[in-house]
Amino acid sequence: MFSEVRKRAQKAGQPPGTAIYTGEKSDSQPLVTCVQYNGSDISEKTGNQLKDCLTEQKPGMNTWVNVEGLHNASLIEETRNHFNLHPLTIEDILNIEQRPKVEEFDHYLFVTMKILEWLPKSFSFSINQLSLIIGKDYVLSFHEEKSSRFNEIRKRLLSTPNQRLRQQGSDYLAYRIIDAVVDQYFVVLEGLGDQIEDIEQRIITSPTPQNARTVYRLKRQMLLLRKAIWPMREAINHLLYVEDELITKFTRVYLRDVYDHSMQAIDTLETFRDMLSGMLDMYLSGLTIRMNEIMKTLTIITTTVIPITALSSIYGMNLSGVPLMHSSWGFSIVSSLMALIVILMMIYFRRKKWI
Amino acid sequence: MFSEVRKRAQKAGQPPGTAIYTGEKSDSQPLVTCVQYNGSDISEKTGNQLKDCLTEQKPGMNTWVNVEGLHNASLIEETRNHFNLHPLTIEDILNIEQRPKVEEFDHYLFVTMKILEWLPKSFSFSINQLSLIIGKDYVLSFHEEKSSRFNEIRKRLLSTPNQRLRQQGSDYLAYRIIDAVVDQYFVVLEGLGDQIEDIEQRIITSPTPQNARTVYRLKRQMLLLRKAIWPMREAINHLLYVEDELITKFTRVYLRDVYDHSMQAIDTLETFRDMLSGMLDMYLSGLTIRMNEIMKTLTIITTTVIPITALSSIYGMNLSGVPLMHSSWGFSIVSSLMALIVILMMIYFRRKKWI
Amino acid sequence: MFSEVRKRAQKAGQPPGTAIYTGEKSDSQPLVTCVQYNGSDISEKTGNQLKDCLTEQKPGMNTWVNVEGLHNASLIEETRNHFNLHPLTIEDILNIEQRPKVEEFDHYLFVTMKILEWLPKSFSFSINQLSLIIGKDYVLSFHEEKSSRFNEIRKRLLSTPNQRLRQQGSDYLAYRIIDAVVDQYFVVLEGLGDQIEDIEQRIITSPTPQNARTVYRLKRQMLLLRKAIWPMREAINHLLYVEDELITKFTRVYLRDVYDHSMQAIDTLETFRDMLSGMLDMYLSGLTIRMNEIMKTLTIITTTVIPITALSSIYGMNLSGVPLMHSSWGFSIVSSLMALIVILMMIYFRRKKWI
Amino acid sequence: MFSEVRKRAQKAGQPPGTAIYTGEKSDSQPLVTCVQYNGSDISEKTGNQLKDCLTEQKPGMNTWVNVEGLHNASLIEETRNHFNLHPLTIEDILNIEQRPKVEEFDHYLFVTMKILEWLPKSFSFSINQLSLIIGKDYVLSFHEEKSSRFNEIRKRLLSTPNQRLRQQGSDYLAYRIIDAVVDQYFVVLEGLGDQIEDIEQRIITSPTPQNARTVYRLKRQMLLLRKAIWPMREAINHLLYVEDELITKFTRVYLRDVYDHSMQAIDTLETFRDMLSGMLDMYLSGLTIRMNEIMKTLTIITTTVIPITALSSIYGMNLSGVPLMHSSWGFSIVSSLMALIVILMMIYFRRKKWI
Amino acid sequence: MFSEVRKRAQKAGQPPGTAIYTGEKSDSQPLVTCVQYNGSDISEKTGNQLKDCLTEQKPGMNTWVNVEGLHNASLIEETRNHFNLHPLTIEDILNIEQRPKVEEFDHYLFVTMKILEWLPKSFSFSINQLSLIIGKDYVLSFHEEKSSRFNEIRKRLLSTPNQRLRQQGSDYLAYRIIDAVVDQYFVVLEGLGDQIEDIEQRIITSPTPQNARTVYRLKRQMLLLRKAIWPMREAINHLLYVEDELITKFTRVYLRDVYDHSMQAIDTLETFRDMLSGMLDMYLSGLTIRMNEIMKTLTIITTTVIPITALSSIYGMNLSGVPLMHSSWGFSIVSSLMALIVILMMIYFRRKKWI
Repeated sequence: MFSEVRKRAQKAGQPPGTAIYTGEKSDSQPLVTCVQYNGSDISEKTGNQLKDCLTEQKPGMNTWVNVEGLHNASLIEETRNHFNLHPLTIEDILNIEQRPKVEEFDHYLFVTMKILEWLPKSFSFSINQLSLIIGKDYVLSFHEEKSSRFNEIRKRLLSTPNQRLRQQGSDYLAYRIIDAVVDQYFVVLEGLGDQIEDIEQRIITSPTPQNARTVYRLKRQMLLLRKAIWPMREAINHLLYVEDELITKFTRVYLRDVYDHSMQAIDTLETFRDMLSGMLDMYLSGLTIRMNEIMKTLTIITTTVIPITALSSIYGMNLSGVPLMHSSWGFSIVSSLMALIVILMMIYFRRKKWI
Repeated sequence: MFSEVRKRAQKAGQPPGTAIYTGEKSDSQPLVTCVQYNGSDISEKTGNQLKDCLTEQKPGMNTWVNVEGLHNASLIEETRNHFNLHPLTIEDILNIEQRPKVEEFDHYLFVTMKILEWLPKSFSFSINQLSLIIGKDYVLSFHEEKSSRFNEIRKRLLSTPNQRLRQQGSDYLAYRIIDAVVDQYFVVLEGLGDQIEDIEQRIITSPTPQNARTVYRLKRQMLLLRKAIWPMREAINHLLYVEDELITKFTRVYLRDVYDHSMQAIDTLETFRDMLSGMLDMYLSGLTIRMNEIMKTLTIITTTVIPITALSSIYGMNLSGVPLMHSSWGFSIVSSLMALIVILMMIYFRRKKWI
Repeated sequence: MFSEVRKRAQKAGQPPGTAIYTGEKSDSQPLVTCVQYNGSDISEKTGNQLKDCLTEQKPGMNTWVNVEGLHNASLIEETRNHFNLHPLTIEDILNIEQRPKVEEFDHYLFVTMKILEWLPKSFSFSINQLSLIIGKDYVLSFHEEKSSRFNEIRKRLLSTPNQRLRQQGSDYLAYRIIDAVVDQYFVVLEGLGDQIEDIEQRIITSPTPQNARTVYRLKRQMLLLRKAIWPMREAINHLLYVEDELITKFTRVYLRDVYDHSMQAIDTLETFRDMLSGMLDMYLSGLTIRMNEIMKTLTIITTTVIPITALSSIYGMNLSGVPLMHSSWGFSIVSSLMALIVILMMIYFRRKKWI
Repeated sequence: MFSEVRKRAQKAGQPPGTAIYTGEKSDSQPLVTCVQYNGSDISEKTGNQLKDCLTEQKPGMNTWVNVEGLHNASLIEETRNHFNLHPLTIEDILNIEQRPKVEEFDHYLFVTMKILEWLPKSFSFSINQLSLIIGKDYVLSFHEEKSSRFNEIRKRLLSTPNQRLRQQGSDYLAYRIIDAVVDQYFVVLEGLGDQIEDIEQRIITSPTPQNARTVYRLKRQMLLLRKAIWPMREAINHLLYVEDELITKFTRVYLRDVYDHSMQAIDTLETFRDMLSGMLDMYLSGLTIRMNEIMKTLTIITTTVIPITALSSIYGMNLSGVPLMHSSWGFSIVSSLMALIVILMMIYFRRKKWI
Repeated sequence: MFSEVRKRAQKAGQPPGTAIYTGEKSDSQPLVTCVQYNGSDISEKTGNQLKDCLTEQKPGMNTWVNVEGLHNASLIEETRNHFNLHPLTIEDILNIEQRPKVEEFDHYLFVTMKILEWLPKSFSFSINQLSLIIGKDYVLSFHEEKSSRFNEIRKRLLSTPNQRLRQQGSDYLAYRIIDAVVDQYFVVLEGLGDQIEDIEQRIITSPTPQNARTVYRLKRQMLLLRKAIWPMREAINHLLYVEDELITKFTRVYLRDVYDHSMQAIDTLETFRDMLSGMLDMYLSGLTIRMNEIMKTLTIITTTVIPITALSSIYGMNLSGVPLMHSSWGFSIVSSLMALIVILMMIYFRRKKWI
């Protein structure tokens, strides 16, 4: 969260549209994959530069250019010139700390969103940025790093001719990509939900600070998730009502479906937040209950024993005239009195339901 | 709640419109009931497949197809082809973890909602999904499991000709089904309300952790209920203002009424939530009061007895020159002093209103 | 609150428009009062049936039918037929657990609202339902029970000819009834406000659980009140902007005034709620302060006396070689030491501002 | 706050438009000031009745009638007839418990708002009502009591001809009055802000109940302020967008400025509320910290001294065979042991960072 | 925050449009910088008065007048006359306590906003006001004090001809200034974020009042920040949708980008607020845990030692008939009993998981 602000802060003072990559530098070559397809034909090429794979835009075919790795300035410049992109679009693609959004430009739509990935080992998730450019007959997708995330979609594209994905235009391909991104949100929510279910059981039985810390950690992760998912819903809604012929009526029906999924993700997120808040309340009351337990123990033992000590002390005084002092029944009577005090105390505590 | 997310998560990576049933598998045959009716005529057929009961769509008659059991893929496919449904509709019917919603398609409306059923034995409720397709002269309803829920409506359909239900179109039948669903919400709210009333009495008289746990459990059930009822209200509102001739002006008056009922359910739900929050506050202050009680007891007994012990100890010292040590009035004076201290303490505590 | 849900729950499974009275049954006859009036003429008749008092609707005159008691089905049926009311209207009139609302029908407006009555003896209020039907030249009002609430308005109608109330149409009469209902809200708010002012004083001086319970009770009453007043505001707003010639421009000016009053009632209600929340916070901090007081007392007495006991015990040991043991100054020195310890303790507590 | 409700409650049952003054009765005569002006000419008259000062409405001149004191029914009646006011307007002027609002009538605008006055002696503020009627060429202003509040504006009117205030119409004069009212809000906010700043310092250093009470008092004053300022913002906004030629485009620019001021007052108010809430949290945690301090002291002294007492008691037993009993090193060894226990305890507490 | 209200309060009673500077007085001369430019030519002049640097407005060129220092009334008057500004604009420029806003005037747009500057030494930030006037071919910017903030933009203007900044109109220059202001928000958020991250670590390990105070301080700074950033977002949104040809379609694309940045700043701000609230909860529960620790220690030591004392006291009584009194095994048996009690106590506490 902080890194995001930090990156933005470092850019302060730079003119807008400056192509500065805010992610980590890397020496490896970026990977460019170009797929050109229509209902009947399809071709796929891979390279390190745009010109390696995109020779010519064939009429009547859709092109999908998938770029993995943003640290190569010349590749980005090449893409910009080839597709005639606005300088701000380039700036937004390179600045990997964007808020999810949709922006309309003259001949394309620009979508930026967060890809979440569940990391089962650390019980946590990673956040990466995906930028999408939807043109009349092309889709450009930009990842920070090498990623196998859309292999599924590519395989499907290559598999059968005349399927829906091949017959529809670039907007439908973009929908498929967005749908895959939103589906991942549920994988992350499932991972967090498992932890929430687990900690809920444990915090009831043992309200330890460790468990409370886990709840706080989950709450913070919810904050991060919220920053990614809430604006995503707005973005999809924007896409749904964009006044542009780029999005066909056919695809809008599908986008409505993704919108519903994003709503469901938000519902779940907010329910999780409510549950975590409830757990913290439960934890705090658990602490007070524990305190009551401790205090009861202290009080019971102290108040039981102290009168005995008092009585013994009285008979330990070096004074004359203490009753029973010289009686042979002395100890019997005094110890009976002590036993009586203890019994009375016990009855009193029993009545108060302390023991 | 988690299961919902889990199902969705398992679907991640699947192409949209894939007909995957997300509920539990079952070996039993699904049950299909078809009712065809108009003001004067009516026929009812039952079977395991659509063709068993739906031979031909008679003109001027309304058809109600009620499917119980979603695990048979071929039945669903048959229905899809017969009524020309959108692939997303089928996906949504089979995915039993939908958020309640209304979707408009070219020649039909798709409604998905949650059926709540109160389970008196476990003081809890079940959540099932009902999908409804409202066409020009047909209504399709899809349940997860065998269900006797709409027998009442079927009986009524069969009972008298020329009644309102028979004379009106498919939209009125759909309204009747939705109305029956919303009415069940009040049964669930009644069940929970009884428990809330009960726990409210108990948590005042005995603020035990068990009672607090019951309040937390009820709060969680409210979260679940909220996820079902809030979007239902939006869905009915959507239906009310749908720009489609499928919903007649006649039926809209009735839908407005269901909308009011859903508003009332939400009002009640939110009031319950407020009451439960109030109870938790009351419980927490109850814990602190209890703590105060315990501390008062400890303090009173300790501060009463300790000065006696101190005085006794002084007279237990093996020192010479202790006043009254050898006086025959010694014990009388010292014990009077002790009594005096106790009485002064009592007066002090009385003034502080501790006893 | 629960009763409301319960009634609705009992209706589950019934077809809509079923005329089922959800209030308590009664053997007494309902009372029907019909007033027909215009600027110059007026007549009033009373009976147990509609035909007893409403012989014919005279042209150019307004009719006010006031029904007290809803348990007589035939009377309701008679009214329905006479004024050609929608079945849902009848259902809503008889279901006394409605949410306040306005509904537009073809030739009339249907208003349902809550009448609040302050019960000074129990420091509480009753909630009853009033249904109002505003037609072109008639107003129908339905009460659950015999009620003298609108006698004031009836007297005024009968009093002088050519006054505003007589010259204006049915919408103005309806406004007068609604205005009288909203005015009662302020009577209830005054009653509760007096209690809030009273408890606010008391909870500062003595933060007892009894006083806290009173605050919780008031908070709950606010919840009830809220459920009645908030939707009332919406209903009046709806009436204000209803696109219907039934409400004249003349009357709209007056309705705007009632709307302002309902806003003021809500403002007051919300301020009361904020004040009650503030009181609970004050109560909780009061409990902690009290705890601090108790603990301070315990600590001061214990820490003062315990060193004395320790010193005395040391001199009570049956050991040889204890210094001062055989000195004749022994007791003087030891007791001075004790006094010194007590004084040092006192200085320490004084510095900490505990005493 | 309560008085407001009470007044409204007393009016329950009265017909609308009844001219009942809800403020305190007074024997003194009301004061009426009439100023007639245009760019070049101006005249001012004062009296107890409208006819004393308003002889005739000169064409091309603006009239400002300022009424101080509302308890004289005939004066109000006279004004009503002269300016042809709606009965509800008169009712609203006399009912001094109005919610700030703007109402449009056929030939005038009616504005009611709260005048706040800071009372430096009581560190509090008074709330009075000001009603304003803006006609084509007149402004009427109604105060509850004699008031020198608008002397400034009157002086300015009288001072120079051809200034903006003299050249513009009645709407500009009304704007000046509203602007003066809103400016006073900042005086009150300044007074409260000083107190908040002051108490913030004190509650950190000494979290006493007295300081907490001050915070609660300030919170309540915020509630009162909120009830006055929030609706004021809505009212000014209403005035800004009123579809009426009474408000010229020239004046609207100025009203937008007052609107911004009211927004700023609300921002400040809400920031104050947040700060006060933060202080209460700080106070509550302060109480718990104090409790921890007390408990630490008790624990340290008790646990240090009690082992000494135990050891002494053992050597005080009248038993034979106690080790060291008859040794001449007895006391030295035992007292060394005691010292050791104390030192070990101290080390333990030091490690726990309690001392 | 208070100063703001105070300034406004001092102005109460002044006529609107009065040019009163509400900042601190200064003797130094204000600095005026005028830049005139188009795609090919550029000239820059500096002086203390407008006429020093702005000789004539050349047609086809854009003018940027940057004023640093607002305390010279004649300079402001000169500017007003030269550019024909509305009196309220001048008032708003001089009143340095404005809420960020955009106002439309006949021939220019007026923007007022807050410049935040991070002060690394005090871990805090300063708030200054910047007013911007956007005319057809000029931009006026007004700072309170001498400032080097826009040197970067000026340098860039002077650097290369025919760059975007030189070719676009005054609206693009204004955008660049606003963009620079919003970028600074991220620098401030970064500074605060570092502190939040730091305190989050510390408050877990040591929940001291000092750390809690730091959290409260950060929370208050968030309140201040919120007052600056939230209205800024509204203002930019207003600018984005202003119906004026002053803002070209070209520039609107860039303004949309600044709007997104302001949204991101708000998202971060609100996340910070949530995190700080979470920390305070964590701190409060930390206090209670600490209390539990203290109480446990007290209870364990007290309840372990007190029975030993009690037993010793019994054997210290000067009574005859005490068992074992004269037995030579006496001490061995009694001391074994004592050891047994201690061991039993330890087992009990171990079971309760206290030790």
